[in-house]
Amino acid sequence: MSEKLTLLDLLLANPQKFLSGEEISRRLSVSRTAVWKQINKLREAGYEFEAVPNKGYRIVNQPERIDPSALKKTLKTKTFGLKLDVLETSVSTQEEARELAEAGAPEGTLVVAEEQTGGKGRMGRKWFSPKGKGIWMSLVLKPAQPLHYMPQLTLLTGVAVCRAVRRVTGVMAGLKWPNDLLVDGRKICGILLESAAEDEYVRYCIAGIGISANLDAEDYPDELKPVATSLKIEAGEAIDRVQLIAAVMEEFEALYDLYRQEGFAPIALLWEALSVTLGKQVTVYTAAGPVTGHAKKLDHSGALTIVTEDGRELPVFSGDVELRR
Amino acid sequence: MSEKLTLLDLLLANPQKFLSGEEISRRLSVSRTAVWKQINKLREAGYEFEAVPNKGYRIVNQPERIDPSALKKTLKTKTFGLKLDVLETSVSTQEEARELAEAGAPEGTLVVAEEQTGGKGRMGRKWFSPKGKGIWMSLVLKPAQPLHYMPQLTLLTGVAVCRAVRRVTGVMAGLKWPNDLLVDGRKICGILLESAAEDEYVRYCIAGIGISANLDAEDYPDELKPVATSLKIEAGEAIDRVQLIAAVMEEFEALYDLYRQEGFAPIALLWEALSVTLGKQVTVYTAAGPVTGHAKKLDHSGALTIVTEDGRELPVFSGDVELRR
Repeated sequence: MSEKLTLLDLLLANPQKFLSGEEISRRLSVSRTAVWKQINKLREAGYEFEAVPNKGYRIVNQPERIDPSALKKTLKTKTFGLKLDVLETSVSTQEEARELAEAGAPEGTLVVAEEQTGGKGRMGRKWFSPKGKGIWMSLVLKPAQPLHYMPQLTLLTGVAVCRAVRRVTGVMAGLKWPNDLLVDGRKICGILLESAAEDEYVRYCIAGIGISANLDAEDYPDELKPVATSLKIEAGEAIDRVQLIAAVMEEFEALYDLYRQEGFAPIALLWEALSVTLGKQVTVYTAAGPVTGHAKKLDHSGALTIVTEDGRELPVFSGDVELRR
Repeated sequence: MSEKLTLLDLLLANPQKFLSGEEISRRLSVSRTAVWKQINKLREAGYEFEAVPNKGYRIVNQPERIDPSALKKTLKTKTFGLKLDVLETSVSTQEEARELAEAGAPEGTLVVAEEQTGGKGRMGRKWFSPKGKGIWMSLVLKPAQPLHYMPQLTLLTGVAVCRAVRRVTGVMAGLKWPNDLLVDGRKICGILLESAAEDEYVRYCIAGIGISANLDAEDYPDELKPVATSLKIEAGEAIDRVQLIAAVMEEFEALYDLYRQEGFAPIALLWEALSVTLGKQVTVYTAAGPVTGHAKKLDHSGALTIVTEDGRELPVFSGDVELRR
């Protein structure tokens, strides 16, 4: 932000009072036309003004923003989120975080964007990330563990986000294997862990978390309406995104520490407790073909154990789960 | 290559004959000074000329090059190596292959460089890749399998290179876990598999293979002399790099097909047969600390099973192995 007094500063400093175009023009040393142009620009950015002839302008609504300094003050973590970039717009926070990680950014570096123009989901799918409505963020992790254990970290991330959502919003989201968050069968959050490895050594991992926080039903494109929902829709009120981001960082860091000290067993128990997949008949579409059966448990490595009709127990590491009946 | 007749074309077309500077100058329509400058440039690139006053120049030695068309003709594969880039120089063939993979290059795309100026080894180490002396190459793989199985692919790559080296050169190299090639305890080849994954889905993997083919003892910097050797040193004669690259591609493709059809069991047997690690007392330096014991076998996932002094069997997924005694 420039040091110069802006139109926005002036209006925000006088929230109740009308300021005439003439007064604004004088105090900012700009023309009346320039004032009018700036007002329009702010309107486009989501600000709302009341404009009354012979009285002037006053600000009546400003877009909710994720304020980096408010977020930093809210965070009760040791490292997660403390190195923070909040971007007005980004093609993909995954890509931003990846570049930071390649440049040596430390574990816990967080990139948040108000909107993503090319948000990424799994398997090259797009992730709908409209402006100011959601939490679109990516966290740099440097797990000192072999690549072999990555499925466990994927499950851990789901647990962290699920716990934070329940705590801050009261919405009782559940985990669909491996790490989607659902409410009544509709997706409320997607998680994507991208990792870069050399042989078995994980150079870094980027945990991408997309939470549909404050989207209204009409914000969704038609094809998403039957399968997606938002925390605002479910909770009946807007979510404080700063509080939720801070809670995700806290839960994530605490579970990550627990995992490093105690291994996967406590994480598996938490995941199982929050799961909407276990105990159900499912079909998992894997690279090797579909596997149908009873979703029994997580095994020690993080694979989903499917009991097939003929009683065999198959571990499944990767795939899309479809709940049956 | 330009269509214009070059000095090199002219000299190569007349291998025995001396061509005077005047004649060359006339036939290429360039000045005598330009001829002299070009001769010096080619000398820097490894060509050797005999220059006799009043007779002129003739070519007596040219640097051995990896000829892409000769390589393509030699390859007996379905896909591996058929999409081929042979570069005079590259910072890192891993990086070139990674960019090609990100841009959608198919499985089997191969990048070979005569030299690497920033060749990469494991853990950010440098890989010594002098010009014209080795095989510095990277292959794009798109294994349709979960990330979970990557250790198996690392071991498979070692087996493929080891088999090709033994077949083409007769040098009885052995595999140090997970995939270094050694001759009498000295490193002759390094392998590095870099993978990019989304959750458990492997987007692509770049298999980097560096074979010290035709290095002479004096080519090595002092710090590498005690720990490295080359195929030329061990075999007592220069290696035909085109034959060896083609053999690596063939072995790699055949084992990759076998692995997809039969799983890891036959690969594990081959790896064990070629290993210089099994049956030895070893210390493995892992991220979680050193593990010392008897290297017993590969387990079904590709982990090295270490039997510790108190009789426990520990699976090790990642680390540097040190042979003891």
